[in-house]
Amino acid sequence: MTSAERNTNAHNWSRAEVDALSAEHRRWGFWGSDDELGAMNFIDGEAVKHAASLVRRGEVISCAMPYDLTGPQTGYLGRFNPMHFMTQDGGDIQLGAQEHLPGLRFADDVISMPLQSGTHWDAFSHIFYDGAMYNGFGLEHVTSSGASRGALETMQERLTGRGVLLDFPRFKGVQWLEPGHAINGNDLIACAEAQGVTIGRGDILLIRTGHLAMCRAEGWGDYAGGDSPGLSLDTARVVVEREVAAVASDTWGVEVRPNETDEVMQPLHVVLLVNAGVVFGEMFDLERLAAACASDGVYEFLLAAAPLPFTGAVGGPLNPIAIR
Amino acid sequence: MTSAERNTNAHNWSRAEVDALSAEHRRWGFWGSDDELGAMNFIDGEAVKHAASLVRRGEVISCAMPYDLTGPQTGYLGRFNPMHFMTQDGGDIQLGAQEHLPGLRFADDVISMPLQSGTHWDAFSHIFYDGAMYNGFGLEHVTSSGASRGALETMQERLTGRGVLLDFPRFKGVQWLEPGHAINGNDLIACAEAQGVTIGRGDILLIRTGHLAMCRAEGWGDYAGGDSPGLSLDTARVVVEREVAAVASDTWGVEVRPNETDEVMQPLHVVLLVNAGVVFGEMFDLERLAAACASDGVYEFLLAAAPLPFTGAVGGPLNPIAIR
Amino acid sequence: MTSAERNTNAHNWSRAEVDALSAEHRRWGFWGSDDELGAMNFIDGEAVKHAASLVRRGEVISCAMPYDLTGPQTGYLGRFNPMHFMTQDGGDIQLGAQEHLPGLRFADDVISMPLQSGTHWDAFSHIFYDGAMYNGFGLEHVTSSGASRGALETMQERLTGRGVLLDFPRFKGVQWLEPGHAINGNDLIACAEAQGVTIGRGDILLIRTGHLAMCRAEGWGDYAGGDSPGLSLDTARVVVEREVAAVASDTWGVEVRPNETDEVMQPLHVVLLVNAGVVFGEMFDLERLAAACASDGVYEFLLAAAPLPFTGAVGGPLNPIAIR
Amino acid sequence: MTSAERNTNAHNWSRAEVDALSAEHRRWGFWGSDDELGAMNFIDGEAVKHAASLVRRGEVISCAMPYDLTGPQTGYLGRFNPMHFMTQDGGDIQLGAQEHLPGLRFADDVISMPLQSGTHWDAFSHIFYDGAMYNGFGLEHVTSSGASRGALETMQERLTGRGVLLDFPRFKGVQWLEPGHAINGNDLIACAEAQGVTIGRGDILLIRTGHLAMCRAEGWGDYAGGDSPGLSLDTARVVVEREVAAVASDTWGVEVRPNETDEVMQPLHVVLLVNAGVVFGEMFDLERLAAACASDGVYEFLLAAAPLPFTGAVGGPLNPIAIR
Repeated sequence: MTSAERNTNAHNWSRAEVDALSAEHRRWGFWGSDDELGAMNFIDGEAVKHAASLVRRGEVISCAMPYDLTGPQTGYLGRFNPMHFMTQDGGDIQLGAQEHLPGLRFADDVISMPLQSGTHWDAFSHIFYDGAMYNGFGLEHVTSSGASRGALETMQERLTGRGVLLDFPRFKGVQWLEPGHAINGNDLIACAEAQGVTIGRGDILLIRTGHLAMCRAEGWGDYAGGDSPGLSLDTARVVVEREVAAVASDTWGVEVRPNETDEVMQPLHVVLLVNAGVVFGEMFDLERLAAACASDGVYEFLLAAAPLPFTGAVGGPLNPIAIR
Repeated sequence: MTSAERNTNAHNWSRAEVDALSAEHRRWGFWGSDDELGAMNFIDGEAVKHAASLVRRGEVISCAMPYDLTGPQTGYLGRFNPMHFMTQDGGDIQLGAQEHLPGLRFADDVISMPLQSGTHWDAFSHIFYDGAMYNGFGLEHVTSSGASRGALETMQERLTGRGVLLDFPRFKGVQWLEPGHAINGNDLIACAEAQGVTIGRGDILLIRTGHLAMCRAEGWGDYAGGDSPGLSLDTARVVVEREVAAVASDTWGVEVRPNETDEVMQPLHVVLLVNAGVVFGEMFDLERLAAACASDGVYEFLLAAAPLPFTGAVGGPLNPIAIR
Repeated sequence: MTSAERNTNAHNWSRAEVDALSAEHRRWGFWGSDDELGAMNFIDGEAVKHAASLVRRGEVISCAMPYDLTGPQTGYLGRFNPMHFMTQDGGDIQLGAQEHLPGLRFADDVISMPLQSGTHWDAFSHIFYDGAMYNGFGLEHVTSSGASRGALETMQERLTGRGVLLDFPRFKGVQWLEPGHAINGNDLIACAEAQGVTIGRGDILLIRTGHLAMCRAEGWGDYAGGDSPGLSLDTARVVVEREVAAVASDTWGVEVRPNETDEVMQPLHVVLLVNAGVVFGEMFDLERLAAACASDGVYEFLLAAAPLPFTGAVGGPLNPIAIR
Repeated sequence: MTSAERNTNAHNWSRAEVDALSAEHRRWGFWGSDDELGAMNFIDGEAVKHAASLVRRGEVISCAMPYDLTGPQTGYLGRFNPMHFMTQDGGDIQLGAQEHLPGLRFADDVISMPLQSGTHWDAFSHIFYDGAMYNGFGLEHVTSSGASRGALETMQERLTGRGVLLDFPRFKGVQWLEPGHAINGNDLIACAEAQGVTIGRGDILLIRTGHLAMCRAEGWGDYAGGDSPGLSLDTARVVVEREVAAVASDTWGVEVRPNETDEVMQPLHVVLLVNAGVVFGEMFDLERLAAACASDGVYEFLLAAAPLPFTGAVGGPLNPIAIR
């Protein structure tokens, strides 16, 4: 079976078609020529207040994977799993290495990790097309010293608002969507409707494909960069028209793989992230949240999903907290 | 001026007195012999719902410092400031190093940092006294492979609840508390009262001393491990009686330094963190939050402050988000 | 085929037998109770002068593998392949990030690597048995702060002397020795004799098994920790009696694997490194050197093989240079 | 005192003058358009044999600084001192963390360091001028993936030959040369003559200024990038005419600082390294070697100074071993 056969609802896009879709949905300058927030601007005070009003049960659910060596990274794109080093530990205490300290003893540690090795947001500076990131900022803004435009720290007080989970396996009545399965725009609307929610302005969409559950059952395989279910280019229209603030999923790259075109790698990143200013969250663990939503049929909640402000980073980890 | 003179409201504690205070406030076994959450258990569903009800303006305020080389670390305890490496960047794209990719171009990066080099929570596994961490778990639980008890990941879905800011500089009418200034138990109550809040069960207390503001004005100096304002051992009673869930401040170590005893390093860590099961948040940036609270006189809010789940870590970074 | 079948010339040693062999060859105290050099003491000024006299052709041959991501590490024992990060590069220059510098432009970089991930020496502090390393130093000498006894830096001016290559595949007329093939003591003597050299005091033996060549032909597989040809426990006698200074090979761990006993992991490390004070060099690339020796039939040379002085390290990388 | 006053034997060069000197000494294409070795080509088999013949006493002396946190780095150029992490240690063994292993116990460790943070060679890919490194290779050869031309690994079997120490403090009868002191071409010849050696083809010159000794006595201060004694631009003529293979010193950057021009940073790097193809060794510890040479009046020796082959690196550490 070829990728084209698996992406049964997708056609093979030409680069010109991708470019046209990008142009159609481009929001550069919409929030000013200096804007670095894009669709995150849709989350205003009213949206936050409304999101807080959705907390009905007092449940707190994390959507973060563990950051450790059991993660999915294989070296692809130079990404490795987080490495944790103890610089002081119980053994040191046992051997007397802290006897110079009065009374108290301590352990301490260090982490070394690619910022996108686990659950993370892409910042705008992560993706370029034709030499530009979102809002037209050029390559000179991302050097070995980090990003000076579209950097992760611009998101430090953003991405807290209404979260909406779209649980496709439950909607489709399957354990998980198969790799290569493309979710199109009507699917987004139909799934939301079936779940009793309406996708709207400032929403952070959490797309559960079940791909993470599949890998938990069967092993990571090529989770990091291989075939996966995900969003079709066809979803761009809905995401833009509904003024969605951000989209995250339980896959490596949000969009369907194999991509719907051989002419542009990760084309939905180009259309939505680079052009429409919609950041992508990747490797979100939506399993516990999905179970909770299924238990009471409520698929909207307050989501606190700001990343850590690693200065100049082009993406980065977080602990996305759904409060419902 | 000696430290004793500066700690005018403190006496010089003996180790036996610290031990007695520890024994008085010890909660080991209170939530069962396997408990790894301590006072975080006080944050139940009702507390979360109530905290969410405090969101009135839709403001989202981060309490995280930037994670970068401008941080306060000097090498003390082996801690360095976060180091950020680009593994792909705009220069690579400019030089044609990604020409093998169709269309899309990307930047990528790596972070290496001590987990407690910036804004962070101490996990229970960070501190030992007489060979035991909170709830009596022994040294064998923290090896070079990390912590197997009291580890950071136990806090992954905790520490989201009602936050209460105690803004001591505004309460005292000063720019900042001076290094060595000890806040005692009655101060906690009086400051809360003056701000119109009551410290209660499950609260996450954010103690603003102004020390971070001082360092922003005057340079880091010995922020990381030197003298600072902070909590007196005398506060243990209030924190325990009011069933506070966690305490964080804008200093390196929450408690006053020089410590109120030469016989136990960081004695309040021993009493509260090790014995009473109250985790400490350190290097929180409370400046923006304090300004917001002062503007409308409301010092309580929903706080989403779960750390990232670095497996086996003894402490770790987060982006604490106050929603008000 | 079981491991026992493959180790046809080996018997299955009991722990007591290994201990007896250790006791027989123990040199603790021989060079004083503070000695941290062991058999490296055999390389004296006369030995160095003699080694220098062996330089006849002016050839310089490195025995180091490349240190990079193409290495054999798989995560076993927490070891990863060396990771190289550019902190300034040509792209930065191209994008103008160094325009503040007059004229000159530069690139710069960082390495992160397990010290034993590539070609390396084990230091004495790498291996313990019954709580002691070579010369009886205890566990307290290796904490999170590094090794204070038997550390790598003690070898900074050692391991330069006469190198002797024993090329077993050429001696046996095979491409490489098969995994599990055990080289015994008589093999060492016979191979040396066939090559026209005599193993003697202060020699650094380079044991070529061909295992690296096999992996270059067939892929790394489990090179790092799996089955391999190597020295039998039976070789201890020859190494000790001949007063060999150090032994290195083209395998992960010098000695034959599966080990000749299930009761002691890497038993030859215990007998020779811990007890007889003979350090082991591992993952040496002996291919170019072997070709050169075969071309003129001379298997002795000056070897400059001091490791880099990483303070407190328990092993570490080097570029072993044979001069012949 | 201004820098001009201190560099009493230097004039203030214009960029045009530096460019003219570069043009005069440029060797691009001399060893072919693909050459990546430059003056290292001067070390041929005869030179190596001759160098080996200089071993008279059997002394082995390292010229490496310790690689650890006591080093001189301050963060300038993003360089930090080597960081060493234990991944297994004596404490783990003591706490029983290795009880699953039969008999043997082990310690293991990791290093993270800028490749030029201690004793090191600059590779040709470290320095660019007008968009080119030695032999005209362009910026595209040094991306985030490392150097593909002029990389460190090209030096893997080079830089072993005749070493000549020029001990300027002893020659001048001072403890050390003062920061800003410029050594000119005639100084090189006079010092060599006074020491009974003649600088010649393929020599590796080790320039002792005493600056490291000064820092050992007085603290590092701005050793890493501040003022220092060193070679004047005037030395280029001697280095090129005598066909010197490489130059190393006990300073951060070999050449005198403040530089002899404000118009080109590190101008001798531009003239010699970029144009004449002479690599520079920096932060060599020449103290022990100088004492040995002074004791018998012999300043020539066999030097084994190949760097470790970190693939794609633009410079890197080594343990330079003088054998005399």
